[in-house]
Amino acid sequence: MAPGLPHRALPLLLLLLPPPPARPAGRPYAPTWESLDARPLPRWFDEAKLGVFLHWGVFSVPAFGSEWFWWYWQGEKKPEFVQFMKQYYPPDFKYEDFGPQFTARFFNASQWADLIQASGAKYMVLTSKHHEGFTLWGSKYSWNWNAVDEGPARDIVKELAVAIRSRTDLRFGLYYSLFEWFNPLFLADKSSSFHTRQFPVSKTLPELYELVNTYQPEVLWADGDGGAPDSYWNSTGFLAWLYNESPVRDTVVTNDRWGDGTICKHGGYYTCSDRYNPEHILQHKWENCMTIDKVSWGYRRNAGILDYITIEELVKLLVETVSCGGNLLMNIGPTEDGTISPIFEERLRQMGAWLNVNGEAIYGTHPWKSSNDTVTPDVKLLGHGQSLNWTFWEQSGFVVNLPQLSIGQLPCKWGWALALSHVV
Amino acid sequence: MAPGLPHRALPLLLLLLPPPPARPAGRPYAPTWESLDARPLPRWFDEAKLGVFLHWGVFSVPAFGSEWFWWYWQGEKKPEFVQFMKQYYPPDFKYEDFGPQFTARFFNASQWADLIQASGAKYMVLTSKHHEGFTLWGSKYSWNWNAVDEGPARDIVKELAVAIRSRTDLRFGLYYSLFEWFNPLFLADKSSSFHTRQFPVSKTLPELYELVNTYQPEVLWADGDGGAPDSYWNSTGFLAWLYNESPVRDTVVTNDRWGDGTICKHGGYYTCSDRYNPEHILQHKWENCMTIDKVSWGYRRNAGILDYITIEELVKLLVETVSCGGNLLMNIGPTEDGTISPIFEERLRQMGAWLNVNGEAIYGTHPWKSSNDTVTPDVKLLGHGQSLNWTFWEQSGFVVNLPQLSIGQLPCKWGWALALSHVV
Amino acid sequence: MAPGLPHRALPLLLLLLPPPPARPAGRPYAPTWESLDARPLPRWFDEAKLGVFLHWGVFSVPAFGSEWFWWYWQGEKKPEFVQFMKQYYPPDFKYEDFGPQFTARFFNASQWADLIQASGAKYMVLTSKHHEGFTLWGSKYSWNWNAVDEGPARDIVKELAVAIRSRTDLRFGLYYSLFEWFNPLFLADKSSSFHTRQFPVSKTLPELYELVNTYQPEVLWADGDGGAPDSYWNSTGFLAWLYNESPVRDTVVTNDRWGDGTICKHGGYYTCSDRYNPEHILQHKWENCMTIDKVSWGYRRNAGILDYITIEELVKLLVETVSCGGNLLMNIGPTEDGTISPIFEERLRQMGAWLNVNGEAIYGTHPWKSSNDTVTPDVKLLGHGQSLNWTFWEQSGFVVNLPQLSIGQLPCKWGWALALSHVV
Amino acid sequence: MAPGLPHRALPLLLLLLPPPPARPAGRPYAPTWESLDARPLPRWFDEAKLGVFLHWGVFSVPAFGSEWFWWYWQGEKKPEFVQFMKQYYPPDFKYEDFGPQFTARFFNASQWADLIQASGAKYMVLTSKHHEGFTLWGSKYSWNWNAVDEGPARDIVKELAVAIRSRTDLRFGLYYSLFEWFNPLFLADKSSSFHTRQFPVSKTLPELYELVNTYQPEVLWADGDGGAPDSYWNSTGFLAWLYNESPVRDTVVTNDRWGDGTICKHGGYYTCSDRYNPEHILQHKWENCMTIDKVSWGYRRNAGILDYITIEELVKLLVETVSCGGNLLMNIGPTEDGTISPIFEERLRQMGAWLNVNGEAIYGTHPWKSSNDTVTPDVKLLGHGQSLNWTFWEQSGFVVNLPQLSIGQLPCKWGWALALSHVV
Repeated sequence: MAPGLPHRALPLLLLLLPPPPARPAGRPYAPTWESLDARPLPRWFDEAKLGVFLHWGVFSVPAFGSEWFWWYWQGEKKPEFVQFMKQYYPPDFKYEDFGPQFTARFFNASQWADLIQASGAKYMVLTSKHHEGFTLWGSKYSWNWNAVDEGPARDIVKELAVAIRSRTDLRFGLYYSLFEWFNPLFLADKSSSFHTRQFPVSKTLPELYELVNTYQPEVLWADGDGGAPDSYWNSTGFLAWLYNESPVRDTVVTNDRWGDGTICKHGGYYTCSDRYNPEHILQHKWENCMTIDKVSWGYRRNAGILDYITIEELVKLLVETVSCGGNLLMNIGPTEDGTISPIFEERLRQMGAWLNVNGEAIYGTHPWKSSNDTVTPDVKLLGHGQSLNWTFWEQSGFVVNLPQLSIGQLPCKWGWALALSHVV
Repeated sequence: MAPGLPHRALPLLLLLLPPPPARPAGRPYAPTWESLDARPLPRWFDEAKLGVFLHWGVFSVPAFGSEWFWWYWQGEKKPEFVQFMKQYYPPDFKYEDFGPQFTARFFNASQWADLIQASGAKYMVLTSKHHEGFTLWGSKYSWNWNAVDEGPARDIVKELAVAIRSRTDLRFGLYYSLFEWFNPLFLADKSSSFHTRQFPVSKTLPELYELVNTYQPEVLWADGDGGAPDSYWNSTGFLAWLYNESPVRDTVVTNDRWGDGTICKHGGYYTCSDRYNPEHILQHKWENCMTIDKVSWGYRRNAGILDYITIEELVKLLVETVSCGGNLLMNIGPTEDGTISPIFEERLRQMGAWLNVNGEAIYGTHPWKSSNDTVTPDVKLLGHGQSLNWTFWEQSGFVVNLPQLSIGQLPCKWGWALALSHVV
Repeated sequence: MAPGLPHRALPLLLLLLPPPPARPAGRPYAPTWESLDARPLPRWFDEAKLGVFLHWGVFSVPAFGSEWFWWYWQGEKKPEFVQFMKQYYPPDFKYEDFGPQFTARFFNASQWADLIQASGAKYMVLTSKHHEGFTLWGSKYSWNWNAVDEGPARDIVKELAVAIRSRTDLRFGLYYSLFEWFNPLFLADKSSSFHTRQFPVSKTLPELYELVNTYQPEVLWADGDGGAPDSYWNSTGFLAWLYNESPVRDTVVTNDRWGDGTICKHGGYYTCSDRYNPEHILQHKWENCMTIDKVSWGYRRNAGILDYITIEELVKLLVETVSCGGNLLMNIGPTEDGTISPIFEERLRQMGAWLNVNGEAIYGTHPWKSSNDTVTPDVKLLGHGQSLNWTFWEQSGFVVNLPQLSIGQLPCKWGWALALSHVV
Repeated sequence: MAPGLPHRALPLLLLLLPPPPARPAGRPYAPTWESLDARPLPRWFDEAKLGVFLHWGVFSVPAFGSEWFWWYWQGEKKPEFVQFMKQYYPPDFKYEDFGPQFTARFFNASQWADLIQASGAKYMVLTSKHHEGFTLWGSKYSWNWNAVDEGPARDIVKELAVAIRSRTDLRFGLYYSLFEWFNPLFLADKSSSFHTRQFPVSKTLPELYELVNTYQPEVLWADGDGGAPDSYWNSTGFLAWLYNESPVRDTVVTNDRWGDGTICKHGGYYTCSDRYNPEHILQHKWENCMTIDKVSWGYRRNAGILDYITIEELVKLLVETVSCGGNLLMNIGPTEDGTISPIFEERLRQMGAWLNVNGEAIYGTHPWKSSNDTVTPDVKLLGHGQSLNWTFWEQSGFVVNLPQLSIGQLPCKWGWALALSHVV
């Protein structure tokens, strides 16, 4: 490790040009995985590299433990959650009673969009409906359990869609949970081993069409198959429509969580698992969705500073992810009243400050594989004016001599990136 | 008017035997009004004469003005209701937020059943779902807007069904509103002039089947067509099932509110309008549904004693109704915490005390038409031992000499009935 | 018992004229019981005969069990109350948290005054502060625990004082609890066996002076000595001021609950115990305070009709009380939102209807003792035109022949009174 | 500016030994400023240098705008506050109604004490009662408006006192507001131009004695004279007791806010004004109380990251303050549920990390005045091993040559301190 840089190991991040050409669209797609999987991923997504994930819903009201609060309390009956409710709420209090307390009082979509932009992210993904079933838009199919009828009395999805789209270089995406923990129609179908399909027919599918037609998300992040196969959800039928006919058919990207067994195998890009980080290059585009609060995706009122990932760790994670061909979808959990906790804001702005210097090494880059070719690259430290010297290092790569810089001369505070040009 | 009785005019109530024979069932009924209308009314209903109607729901929480609170506030925007909400609730308060405040805390189905029995009524009708859409049972099709998911967390319909059935001589009935003021699926259908039928297909019909199969009501009191024809609701199809196949096919009675234009014309017995009181004998069985709080069907917190019908008026109404061939369905509105206001309890018990003496002149009777026949009836004052003397009075009837009785000798406090026997 | 009247025994109520002359005022009174007890009772009180007592406060919010709710729950820890709170409220819920829920939303002092007047009562007594310590006026000495700072945000005492005084023939009175169950200053004094006097000095006495000076009640109904002697409360000092200098010194009446041992012995009129009914004539003016809900003075949401005294019982009690020289103070408990339950309203209006006919036999009367004098009285049934015949009955009295009246001719529905004139 | 250190100007911080000798105690002190002002400040306070201020109370519930919320809303009626309440609360909502919502649910005194210790602070000061009058202990003189009767139902002051005292090297202090914006007794005194003294006699003074006797704070931070002179508050009488007889007479320090005109003039150390920063050395010990949220002392839910002072600014402020002879009292505002926002936690831990390296230059130091003496000091960079070279710089001081250090060699991230020894 050269003087002037900290001792923490940093994967060397190298940028390569040019990008791959867009493959021709295979439209019309058939409602089969074979056909759907062959669709080329719209190019913008690979270039975006960084997205912001937002977990927001009625779970933001108790804001305790996890966004899986309802399930842990009344499904698994975890003692910590049962005790929490017993201690602070009347015995007849129901999860649904949190609904009216979800106020979004200070929610300002324009501020959120500004912050997302300031973070350097190029897309955002909002939980339009999590497993609790509460929709952040006024779904006709979720009467009295949505943000327009209950709580905020605002169309959250619409406000954010408008604000995000009015910013240059930001894409609007939506997370949508297929199943709902306690929806009685889902439970009835489940108890028939999914031989009946009341729930997808009267709830999930109408909502997915309504959502795409109305808000035109460019990321559709499915989640939560509830143990049911894609045939129950009619995922291929829906995706064929999404790719062939929907208003976003040209630019939409989707993920791989479309039914039992599809994850890491079918659909759009791969998410494989939460916090997926393969540590090597994958042939298929993937995304590492992770959360800045290490413990929860939804906001937790009683999280301490040690529960939040540091900016150094976050930069490292971004660099690792991008260098292995992934996108990083970093999650924050807004509060029930619509604010973004200053600690999240700080992390996002720190990331933006870093990308302001080092973005050249992130956006629009491609993974590079070392090889024993004989080219002579130029090497620069991003944010620093002069070229650097380097020497080959055995067979695996080369060593760069980093300059002696005072703290006032350092181009950024965390993570330093080198730009290689003339590499093939 | 003879001495010993008050001056207030009372229709002379006469009892006639025997009842008509039960007509053979015309099963299977076709889903046409012609076929359905031909079904004989199960005999128990005509003999019952008196029922108790209960309007209970989320509207019992504001308990202000009317059970049409939601509509008056946000549909019609009546100043009185708009002002009430503005004055006492935060600006972002929604009707749905009343849901959790509907506690049914003191609700005791057994006490209610005792009281209904004590009133002398032979059936009861509960608003299983009013126009607000909130179901008093845990409807799978009304998730988070029903009494099991929200508010009481109890299956109100079930508790009452069990309690009522365990009493001798009481029948269990359910009111069900077809339409829902603000259900987005109904509104979408309506905006298509009812050419689409999302709402009845995914909500009304599944609920009606669920309701009948699960709770087996012997009165099914439909209401609220929302301007839609019976074909939209598929009322004839449902009624054919109800009469042919349902678990209550032999004993269920229903009313005439099954779609635009059916009232007072098709279905089971006629209700024609609220507080219907034709003041003459009808050929078709009918029911006068009226409410003890003259202003509202749902409970009103700020009703004064002058808003409540007196027992004298109530007895008069029963006598008028029964003497014209109707049943009286007298309504009370329980409070949000499940109590029945003492003033309602008093009226019901007063009615029961009256029927205890005079029930012979009510239950199982048939209207009588005066004629110039020459029979010589015996005449008695119910609750009083001796026969009375009488003389013919021109062509229209006859005059009975009532006895001189001290207040201590009067058989009851309000309304006295004469029993005629040997009349043909 | 003569025909035409019911068999239930009624004490014969006889009216005697003239009233006693007003005794000269003994002002200035010394702060001793000897001096204070010698004050003649202002004449209006004996003539009034009937008052309405109102128990209203934060206890009207839970409205469960009793106005002693707080004490039963957290003082005695009665299982019924502990269970109630446990079942319906979060574990950290405190009695004080009921304060904001005391809304008085529908409270209309003018309507209350109308009703009190319609009942035939001549005075009313409001719980300006019960043992809970919550004052219904904006006491400077009870900051944040009074109806102006908390809950209604209205000066309840003032509104009622104004409304009552604007009615002819109604006097305004206030109940005031000396002690407060949980006031930490009282508890500190108590733990010193009342050798310290922080509480009366900084709370009770300042409030009593404030109350009398501001609202000028003509009845001051003290209650609740908390086991402390009158010297602790400085009752004689206060009463000397009340009788000598206060703005109501000429007309105010007070009762006998001014410290441990004073009851039925010192002060103004005697109350002796709740529901005091000696059944014989007392030499000292007394008052029977009783409550129409037989179980509680404060409103109970779950009271049934059988818990309410009937009008027949109420009339009998009034007659018994007045015939033995007492006044009847009949209590009702308004609801937290400021309504008077229709059942209470009915009882009050029934009483008013009875007094409308029989008031001559109540107001301004004096107990009469039978004697073997030889005068020949005239006797009338009140509300009936003609004189009645009578004959002496041994030594104890005489028998009146009551007329044969039909129910239409009866002057009232419950309780009949005879007027004797020319009796000495 | 030497290489290796940032360009931002840093006041040179120098440490001087030895400390001044403790002056003999002048006990007994007379209740005059002359006598009280002569008391030597207990030595621990000057050595402590850094304290943590905590503003917590009912104002933490709305957590909007400022801890002066109540005053701005209902005293000044600032539009922003009036609008906030109008928009989100029912019209009859009162500030007092926030009381029950102050839950302190996650409050853990031990965690707070750990964090305060981790920050490097040597004392803490809690708002035991702010101008709203709500006491964080169960004051007998503030019934129903304190944290034991209302809201948390816990003795916050006690829990923190215990936790703080169990940590080595931490002192417990209490802020106490003399006046209360809306206390009716204070307002009555004020309207008499403070010629009556009901409020200090029955509220302020009893509470101050109770507070000191019960919790034994070693800092008593008075505030808020409400325009009244110290004679109204009897401040000199109280302080004479505090210094002569109280359980903390030997170690307690107090400030200068004891009545109109005393600030920066009488009492213990000087605070002069909020955020006081004289930028030169004062002869009298002083304290700079400032707040990390630049806008408010109480928690604000909608504060953004730019509202929080950075750690660099905070270190600079500490250094400036200490170098001019002051202590820094840095404020944070906990949330209503008892958490400390992660952004505050981060700042406190960053400060602790800095002090871990540079504490030697802070704690127990004394301001140094440059003079043209001829001594030859040794100079070191704290956290770095070697001595540094220096040269005299004209008459005002000297220049130190700082070493060239890589970022990995820097002893801390923000602010670097030099230690001078052998200086007189």
